[in-house]
Amino acid sequence: MRPGILTLTTDFGSGGPYVAAIKGVILGLAPGTQLVDVCHAVSPQNILEGAFVLAAIVDAFPAGTVHLAVVDPGVGTDRRLVAASVAGQWFVLPDNGLLSGVLHNRAPAGIWEITNPAIRRAAVSPTFHGRDILAPAAAYLLRGGDPAQLGPPRARSIMLRNFEPTQHEHEIVGEVIFRDAFGNLITNIASGRLASAPHELWSVEVAGAGIEGIGVAYGERPTGTLMALIGSSGWLEIAVVNGDAARQLTAGPGTTVWMRKDARQ
Amino acid sequence: MRPGILTLTTDFGSGGPYVAAIKGVILGLAPGTQLVDVCHAVSPQNILEGAFVLAAIVDAFPAGTVHLAVVDPGVGTDRRLVAASVAGQWFVLPDNGLLSGVLHNRAPAGIWEITNPAIRRAAVSPTFHGRDILAPAAAYLLRGGDPAQLGPPRARSIMLRNFEPTQHEHEIVGEVIFRDAFGNLITNIASGRLASAPHELWSVEVAGAGIEGIGVAYGERPTGTLMALIGSSGWLEIAVVNGDAARQLTAGPGTTVWMRKDARQ
Amino acid sequence: MRPGILTLTTDFGSGGPYVAAIKGVILGLAPGTQLVDVCHAVSPQNILEGAFVLAAIVDAFPAGTVHLAVVDPGVGTDRRLVAASVAGQWFVLPDNGLLSGVLHNRAPAGIWEITNPAIRRAAVSPTFHGRDILAPAAAYLLRGGDPAQLGPPRARSIMLRNFEPTQHEHEIVGEVIFRDAFGNLITNIASGRLASAPHELWSVEVAGAGIEGIGVAYGERPTGTLMALIGSSGWLEIAVVNGDAARQLTAGPGTTVWMRKDARQ
Repeated sequence: MRPGILTLTTDFGSGGPYVAAIKGVILGLAPGTQLVDVCHAVSPQNILEGAFVLAAIVDAFPAGTVHLAVVDPGVGTDRRLVAASVAGQWFVLPDNGLLSGVLHNRAPAGIWEITNPAIRRAAVSPTFHGRDILAPAAAYLLRGGDPAQLGPPRARSIMLRNFEPTQHEHEIVGEVIFRDAFGNLITNIASGRLASAPHELWSVEVAGAGIEGIGVAYGERPTGTLMALIGSSGWLEIAVVNGDAARQLTAGPGTTVWMRKDARQ
Repeated sequence: MRPGILTLTTDFGSGGPYVAAIKGVILGLAPGTQLVDVCHAVSPQNILEGAFVLAAIVDAFPAGTVHLAVVDPGVGTDRRLVAASVAGQWFVLPDNGLLSGVLHNRAPAGIWEITNPAIRRAAVSPTFHGRDILAPAAAYLLRGGDPAQLGPPRARSIMLRNFEPTQHEHEIVGEVIFRDAFGNLITNIASGRLASAPHELWSVEVAGAGIEGIGVAYGERPTGTLMALIGSSGWLEIAVVNGDAARQLTAGPGTTVWMRKDARQ
Repeated sequence: MRPGILTLTTDFGSGGPYVAAIKGVILGLAPGTQLVDVCHAVSPQNILEGAFVLAAIVDAFPAGTVHLAVVDPGVGTDRRLVAASVAGQWFVLPDNGLLSGVLHNRAPAGIWEITNPAIRRAAVSPTFHGRDILAPAAAYLLRGGDPAQLGPPRARSIMLRNFEPTQHEHEIVGEVIFRDAFGNLITNIASGRLASAPHELWSVEVAGAGIEGIGVAYGERPTGTLMALIGSSGWLEIAVVNGDAARQLTAGPGTTVWMRKDARQ
């Protein structure tokens, strides 16, 4: 059997031993697993950011991939840890909204709470369930374990509302859900919602600025132009050509975005 | 034979080619080796920080793992390069205190100086022994090489004193040895030292602030509470619930921490 | 067949899903590929920096390695994407100068434009050719594919002039091309250019400061000394012993460096 793929998404930053400790546990329990760092620069305890990152990568990974995510402000409280099967892949994470982006337009094939004391490290630190509970559960799934052994099934997962814009007849009111390293502002408005009118008939208002029409690629406009386009993950994105839209607009996650359809059509 | 695991801990930062150059050398000499980045954000030439990181991961990795660490302010001088066998794992690094945390409560099974000119790259840069001497030595061990071929054995390794707090009858005087990405302050006071009294009878003084008792998990106190707890690596840790203790206390590595036992008991 | 090695060099930063999306595509198309992150902290759209990083690692990797690099200000315009065979390794990247450092002193065995619509993802985002075109092309080469199937051959690649200092009889006028995480300033002056005189007869002028002679290692001078030496990649480098030359000199990429030979010889 080819070793499985495990991805890691955390808010642990780049400066400490925590991510590597999880990797060590995985490699001890599921030798040969292929480890892929997704992102450890999620803002501390920012569940929405982590949820966006997971949603943006799921379509790129092959079936059977196990995604371990730790953005866990509730560690040590009674929040649940779960393993969810979605789109042929596994997500092992705290049930605190981290799956909201992935589940926004996908139904889970199954969700199990992780409670089995036999599938965890001998000593569980109250502050590091990622290493001591989630990593062993992920390793168990990587070795082909039966998810029903992890714990009881769950009917649903906690969902953040940020992935759901408000739809009016001629207007969509959404918000920025992610600011990338280039300063591009990714919104919660999926491209499908904009299919009711040609792209040139939409206008965007964000942080006091107006944009006419939805473009295709950064390279088509002069440097410094503020533009809207469908980003690489399928969401409407606000960008400045060869610039930093977040800085230029003083905008970021939470900023409201209004999309209006030209009344003529 | 299953390919081995090599971890990397450096102060090279995230912005250059140096870490990848080491990886390339390893993969050329020991094909298939599983590479694990531990941390490259150790503060430049901060040996103590590197020593903490290694100590915090060793228990998570399986036997046979080779840990390559480069925090090497003395590169090009006469400091020694060594390979040490500790807890069934290998540590390949400059002998400058980087092993202090790992060796604080573990005895090495053997230490060898790395001097064999046959186990290094053909051209050795005076400024990059990590790539040209340590990486070939690590690859040699990953392929199951005899450590005695690396060079002469060494009886001991240079130890930093920071991992050793001062023990009085009713007081322990320690220090912060690491600030993590959340601003948690990890001290050099191992949980075993606090076993002589119940956790609620200890009081902590750090950076002018007092804390009564040692807690269990962040989630048990209100947001903003300054608390002490046993961290995930087994050391006493100062934290602010959902906050940044380092910033709030203006404290960091080197800050003194006093632990006092209630006189009543 | 042993799985191949794929390295990744981008300006995507550490804070998002983009790098992992590329990795997912690679692992889906070329399972088992060994992934090596080189550097994702290239300054946004800074082609010169990316070109330096690639040049600094090529000699460390084994033959057959595929290097995927994305620093691509022209994404969505008519810039070409290419696969180049150099030094027994593959480089898959936009043809915008990113290969300049690698090709500075190496001739390509072949360059092919990547145009074949069969070797790309079903849906190509106009803003993410790295994931949708370059990654499938790299996976195709990792599986041993025929490069001529990628698209038409190209005779040459776009070259930045920064890797070429100006040579006078007793003087070389170069520039800083990279600032590393320690603040060391790496110049475009290869060690071979300094072979016409002993190292102690060269003097360096940079950012208003003068340095007499070229040293060997940081450790040979007192802390705080400004010095010039041949760096680990074979280029002249300006450093401050245990300090930060870039900060001390207020210098960085683009800063002019004058090398003068003592007239006596």
